[in-house]
Amino acid sequence: MSAELLPSWRTGPTRDAIVAFLDDAERLPVEQRLAVFDNDGTLWCERPAYVQYTFFVHALRRAVQREPVLADRDEFAAVLDDDTVAISELGLARVATALIGLFNGQTPEAFTAAAREFLATSRHPTLERPTSETRYLPMLELIDELRRRDFTVAVVSGGGTEFVRALSRQLYGVPPELVVGTLIDHRVDRDDLGRIVVRRTNVIAGPVNEAQAKVRAIQSCLGRRPILAAGNSAGDREMLEWAMSGDDPGLALLVDHDDAAREFRYQSVSGTVEESEPITDIGSRLGWTTVSMQRDWAEVFGDRSAEPA
Amino acid sequence: MSAELLPSWRTGPTRDAIVAFLDDAERLPVEQRLAVFDNDGTLWCERPAYVQYTFFVHALRRAVQREPVLADRDEFAAVLDDDTVAISELGLARVATALIGLFNGQTPEAFTAAAREFLATSRHPTLERPTSETRYLPMLELIDELRRRDFTVAVVSGGGTEFVRALSRQLYGVPPELVVGTLIDHRVDRDDLGRIVVRRTNVIAGPVNEAQAKVRAIQSCLGRRPILAAGNSAGDREMLEWAMSGDDPGLALLVDHDDAAREFRYQSVSGTVEESEPITDIGSRLGWTTVSMQRDWAEVFGDRSAEPA
Repeated sequence: MSAELLPSWRTGPTRDAIVAFLDDAERLPVEQRLAVFDNDGTLWCERPAYVQYTFFVHALRRAVQREPVLADRDEFAAVLDDDTVAISELGLARVATALIGLFNGQTPEAFTAAAREFLATSRHPTLERPTSETRYLPMLELIDELRRRDFTVAVVSGGGTEFVRALSRQLYGVPPELVVGTLIDHRVDRDDLGRIVVRRTNVIAGPVNEAQAKVRAIQSCLGRRPILAAGNSAGDREMLEWAMSGDDPGLALLVDHDDAAREFRYQSVSGTVEESEPITDIGSRLGWTTVSMQRDWAEVFGDRSAEPA
Repeated sequence: MSAELLPSWRTGPTRDAIVAFLDDAERLPVEQRLAVFDNDGTLWCERPAYVQYTFFVHALRRAVQREPVLADRDEFAAVLDDDTVAISELGLARVATALIGLFNGQTPEAFTAAAREFLATSRHPTLERPTSETRYLPMLELIDELRRRDFTVAVVSGGGTEFVRALSRQLYGVPPELVVGTLIDHRVDRDDLGRIVVRRTNVIAGPVNEAQAKVRAIQSCLGRRPILAAGNSAGDREMLEWAMSGDDPGLALLVDHDDAAREFRYQSVSGTVEESEPITDIGSRLGWTTVSMQRDWAEVFGDRSAEPA
């Protein structure tokens, strides 16, 4: 049976640590079996750009087709020219706010439909596959195995809550209430018939969902401490530490992107967290389980569908 | 088969409307099948006092045993004397803040354990049964039937998120991520070993979860519009309207407490929402389905256990 378990994971200490944790966790009550996964760089590819950023650029191009004057706005000109110097001079926060503003006033349903349409047609620029198939097969297998063992599996992302929710069921079998990300505020309106309508604003509700904020958001939204957390950057540090903070079994998985041949080789850094030490060094020091894509994964990508939640 | 469906609901227009909705909803995609239930007065008894308030008073009495000087504080003296005039003069918000402060610095796990211990021993003052058995049997049957039809069932309460979460699995089979209430902020600490610890504060994060806030919280936490909403007071109005705002099937259920013999007879009002019109009148005007406890429920309370989610 153990041979069938996690078939895309190569035998070795990493797989052994995961299997030992899965077996250990069976003695815990089901209500403690919460596993949280960062999204970008942990469940799917985040290079050369976050998928959500590519979606925003796509939406911007469409908006400019309808309304060409938008292209003259500084933030949008920088994005359309892919001018990283100009973006950095304007400041990422200002550029992000401008992009978020493209969806101001939209209903969540319209936003969700746009994100899904994008995913249905988008291809990765270098990996020669649809963006939807840049999911990591070994992580999908782990999610499936956790569910078989009565774990609740949640995605805890620095990315936009609604963007990830639009895709999470198709990509990972995760329903919207189990996605915790950076949240846009909504306003409650009425339409011409007096019916309630919810609309997006361009204001972020609360902090960007990184670092300590991930811990608070898990407590607020999911209501309990995870015993498995997986991530790849400093934005995931506190969440991974928290999963290891109990006296009961806990597992902190750190994905190391060390596979230039099949994916990318880079030192993961967070977009919004200042880092004084590489996250892989922190992980070694704190006793996390580092997942080497090159060494631990027999396959990286998989075309199988996620099981519906 | 229809005879076995919802056995505690008497035949008549209310039960017919519910069964028609359940059948209608089968043509909708599963991801649209979200049902939200208010808690106090909708899923269980809220008279003579909210259960959470009784829990707070219980916690206050224990705190005073340990630290008698607490009883001298104005807010606590008013609560301990059950002095409604003094409470009203101090203001409910100030009294509530004082009570919330009793748990300041506690871990969510300690708070959860205290709430569960309370529920395990608490009895209703007049109904001659444990507080945990003041759940409404017809609503439990409806929840079970919704789950059988692949609905996601959530509790959307004006009460404290953590208090309801502590009990929701036992009472209704609802896991913590499907409870949306009024949220206390948490802070992220480290213990003496440097491990991450989450602690309650005495600050409410965001608005009290009533009226429009319920709509925004459902969108933020659950990520989609419900097609069934059940409530009993003006604090549920917008949520019920929202469930009815689509072109697809929607059901708004309003529980009317008109059964002095088996429960209580009263006009439901919200603790925090100003009301210019009785909620039952609003419901009639907007085409909601009013549930008369006296007329529509063959039994009110049930001792059967909720099915685990």
